[in-house]
Parts: sequence; C-alpha cells; structure tokens
Amino acid sequence: MTKKSPTHELLSNLENFLAEENFGDSPKELYQPIRYILSLGGKRIRPLLALLSYGLYQDDPEKILGPAAAIEVFHNFTLMHDDIMDEAPLRRGKATVHEKWNSNVAILSGDVMLIRAYDLLLKSDHQYLPEVIQRFNKTAAEVCEGQQLDMNFETRDEVHEEEYLSMIRLKTAVLLGHALELGALLAGASKSDLENLYEFGVNIGIGFQLKDDLLDIFADQAKFGKQVGGDIISNKKTFLLIKALEIAKGEDLKELMYWLSIKEFDKTEKVDAVKALYEKLGIRQLTEEKMDHYFSKGFDLFESINYQNPVFHETLLELTQGLIHREK
Amino acid sequence: MTKKSPTHELLSNLENFLAEENFGDSPKELYQPIRYILSLGGKRIRPLLALLSYGLYQDDPEKILGPAAAIEVFHNFTLMHDDIMDEAPLRRGKATVHEKWNSNVAILSGDVMLIRAYDLLLKSDHQYLPEVIQRFNKTAAEVCEGQQLDMNFETRDEVHEEEYLSMIRLKTAVLLGHALELGALLAGASKSDLENLYEFGVNIGIGFQLKDDLLDIFADQAKFGKQVGGDIISNKKTFLLIKALEIAKGEDLKELMYWLSIKEFDKTEKVDAVKALYEKLGIRQLTEEKMDHYFSKGFDLFESINYQNPVFHETLLELTQGLIHREK
Repeated sequence: MTKKSPTHELLSNLENFLAEENFGDSPKELYQPIRYILSLGGKRIRPLLALLSYGLYQDDPEKILGPAAAIEVFHNFTLMHDDIMDEAPLRRGKATVHEKWNSNVAILSGDVMLIRAYDLLLKSDHQYLPEVIQRFNKTAAEVCEGQQLDMNFETRDEVHEEEYLSMIRLKTAVLLGHALELGALLAGASKSDLENLYEFGVNIGIGFQLKDDLLDIFADQAKFGKQVGGDIISNKKTFLLIKALEIAKGEDLKELMYWLSIKEFDKTEKVDAVKALYEKLGIRQLTEEKMDHYFSKGFDLFESINYQNPVFHETLLELTQGLIHREK
Repeated sequence: MTKKSPTHELLSNLENFLAEENFGDSPKELYQPIRYILSLGGKRIRPLLALLSYGLYQDDPEKILGPAAAIEVFHNFTLMHDDIMDEAPLRRGKATVHEKWNSNVAILSGDVMLIRAYDLLLKSDHQYLPEVIQRFNKTAAEVCEGQQLDMNFETRDEVHEEEYLSMIRLKTAVLLGHALELGALLAGASKSDLENLYEFGVNIGIGFQLKDDLLDIFADQAKFGKQVGGDIISNKKTFLLIKALEIAKGEDLKELMYWLSIKEFDKTEKVDAVKALYEKLGIRQLTEEKMDHYFSKGFDLFESINYQNPVFHETLLELTQGLIHREK
C-alpha cells in the first residue's frame, strides 16, 4: 500500500508561506508588484522540486519552505525583468508589471525581489548557508547569461544547434537542477546524489524547453492555452527552426527563407506552410528524438541516486512524467 | 610619533582586488559593463569605511577585501540601474551603461552585479555570514526604497523636510552605516560598537547629502567639477528648495513659484535669482545648521566606541572630516 502523494499538501503549504511572507510595504510601488507577480500563479514547479528532493531524504520538507520559496521568488524576479527586456504586454494572461506600472517600477521592484530571495535563503539551516548561497549565485548568474544569449540570438542570422541547447540550458534548465540540488543539500544528501539530482534537473529542463518548442507548433489548438504557431509567426529561433535551416536544401530552403522574410502575410497560411515543411524535413521527429535523449539521460541519473523515501521518489517521477506528457 | 595613514595602501589593495576579480566573461554584453562602470573610478568611500572600521579592532584589514569590495560592487549596481531610471547620459563624465550599450544590457548586467556582490560577501569569515547577509539585505532593500521615494518626489507638489531626510537616509546614508558595521562585525566588535558605528555612518551620510545640496548651489565654480546651480535649473527638490517653499511668504513665495514654473529662461539669471532668495530667506544657514547637527551627532557616536587601534581611529576621522570640508 502506497501513501498518498505529498504534492497537494506541499503546494498548499508553499502558497500559504508565500501569501504570508512580508516582502515589505512602503513605498507601495516597490512592494505591490512583488505580490502582484507572485499572485499570478504558475505551477510552482521549482519550489516543488526542492521540497520533493528534500523529501527523498528527510521527513520534514516544510522545514525548507523558506529556501524553496526563494527559488520561486528568484524565478519571478527574472520574469519581471525579462518582460521589460522582451517588451511583453502579458504574463499568464494578465498585464506585466512594466505595463501595469512602468519600466522603472519593474526594474526596481525586481531588484528588491532578488534581495528578498536571499532573505528567504537565509532561512536555510546555517551549517549549509555558504554552500547554498554559492550554488544559488552560480545558477542565478547563469540564468542571466541565458537571457542575454537569447536576446543576442534574436538579431543574429545564424544560430547553431549547440548554441541553442547551451542557451536553454542556462536560461531555463539550470534553475530546475538547482532547485533539486538545493533540496538534497539541505537534507544532507551525499555529494554524488547532489550532482546526479542537479544533472537530472538540467537534462529534463532542456527536454521541457524542447517540449515547449514542439507544443507551440504541434499542440492541439483545442487543448493549448495560446495560439498554436506563435513561434512561426514571430520567426522565433527555436530548436525546430534552427534544425530546419540546417537541413533544408534547394526548393525547401527557398520556401523557408520566403516565409522568414515576408513582412505581410496571412498568419494561418504561414503557420500551415512552415509546419508542413517541418514535417516534410523530419524536424518534428528530430526534435522529439533530441527531447527524448535528454529525458532518458535525466531519468537514468535519477535512478542512480540513493534515496530514503520511495513515496517522494515516486512523486518526483509522476510530477516530471506529467510535465513530459502535458499538452499545453 | 603616529604611524602613516593606512588609507593609501588599503585603497591600492582594493583597486588591485577589484581589477583582478573575475566577474565573468561570456556573453560579453553582460560582463563588460561591470568592468566598465567599476573602471570609472570614484572615491571608493564605502569599501574604505569598511576596511578602516575593521582596522579599529584587528590588524589585518586586507582579510576583508572581498566583503569590502562587495559594498562597492553593490553601490555601482545601484548606479547602473538608477542611471537607466533617471535617463542619465553621463556618469563621472563618461557615457552611462545604458547609453554606451542599451537599457536591456544595463538591466541585466546590473542584475549580475548584484549577484556578484553576494559572491564577494561569501568571502567573509563564515561564522559571520548569516549576520553579514541579513544586514546587507536590509540595507540593500532600503537603498531601493530610497530610490523609489526619490522618483516619487519628482512628481509630487509638496515634499516635507522629514520625508526628504528620510529619503536621503535610505538612498545614500544607510549604505555608509552598513559599510562601517560590516567592517566592525567581521572584526568581532561588540554589539554596541556595531550599532554606534552604523549610526555614525548614517548621520554623517545624511550630512554629506546636505553638503551635496549646498555645494550644488554655493560651490566655487572654479573648484566645483560641474555646473553650479544645476539643481536650481532642474527644480530638483533638495533640502534647500523644500525649506524655501516652507518658509517663503508673500512676494518671496511668488518669485520662487515664478522661477519654478517658467519653461524658458536664462540659466544664469534663474540660478542667481533663486540663490539670492535662498540667502535672503536664510536657507543656506538653515541647511548648514541641519548638516552640522547630523555631523555632530555622528561624531559623538563615533567617540563613544571602544576601538583598539588609534591610527585607524584617527584615519577614519581624517577621511570623514575631509569629506565634510570638500569643495567639490
């Protein structure tokens, strides 16, 4: 007989923790945006990974709600600043902070969020604090590097597969790896488990981004939350486009370049045409294979760890498998 | 016979430390601005205060070059982001980061600087790390609060003296207090010395800002680095303008409001007229008295500490007295 999955209770404790956290009050322009962006929700994957990872070794995951919340606060800080840089009007269907207030508020409020993330890290068992902060800093700087690379790619003619994979590793995957290593570190896990959990997170993180790239183009519109084909419409350099540009020859390449170059077009027509090209060139299958490669590498690493609690092991597997098979 | 002042050697060690610090390399848009803004110089007052404060109790101030440098890196991070918000074209006579690169680079590069400040704090003796980070976080958030208040004041009709003093305390003074408490904390000084050094820094910090406000208007143009009267030209709500608006009545108030309201004017004429009004209303003397009040409160606190090393005590006095009597 297996115990009930701990996810629901952990998520509920985490939401309560975030709701009760006093980030500050005055001046209100600085602190309202912090509560606003955190209230927009999201799946809270990162803090959940930290809590579940801790639970692999120890029975009291609520003990690390502070540092787990730090990861979520940091993640939302990056969203607040990225949205300024990307001039994004919406985040989870609501106005972004720089739209609702202004860019200066979004810059400064984001700065305070980053500082508050360190406040939450301080709630770690102090014997681990130097290592917690050292690993957090490394990850945080890498996430910024990933965002800068992503911006650089927008204006570049050519981006290679390896560069793209390296960018998404930095921009999104290392934070998942860090969440897992943080939980395990605070639970006193072995160095080798720490490293394997970190690499598990990084590998599935890269897989998740490739899944995102695929869903944007091949999702079922009835189930997908936003417009299918958005990346095709905006010529976004996803894994699929990068591979298509690498593989396409002759007429196929000409057609792809045509759709990339025209300024005025019917959206559905462009999406359908590029999608058909991707299918013809085998890009969908190539991307799925690449994604599966990272997932299977990740799960091999996950299976190699010496966990104590099978319920949390099972829960972590279910959570990540659920993300792999999501349709939106 | 007193020993030579240690300032020169400490500053030289600090510059070497900053020059040799590896903030990162790639992508270059992220790391070049960090080295650029740090290379613009400045008096390095904050790290120097930390080093000298440590030297009041211990003989090896070079041991805390890392955390002292953290304060300088943090300070320059705030300058990088403030310059975006204030749309400032120049910093120490050179192009600001958002002008030389762009706003996105200045946002993201600043974010990494803040993270690197925490990396440098990690070089603190680990027994003090939780308290170092807790106090740093408190100060860092307060500096952001001060910047937000300063921006809010720009669009407000009325700002009271107490609000202004509270704003400059947050925006500039607490970081000087923190630099002093950091040095003393890492040297193992008593709680009461920590608090007194902190309050010494905060009080002289408020005094320095009032000195800045005075210099901007009453400096000797031959000795002053920038245009005298800049704050009058831009209607900046300094302590002097706030007091003048509080005190002026009848014709004086009418004249002041006239100069605040007209859009086209001869700069020299406006500066001379408002300056004459300030003199007539006794604003200069009032501001000097307020400044002296903070300086004398600060030095009383400084004299109450139980230091070990009289050379460092003397050096700290000389450094702060030098700043009080500066003419630019």
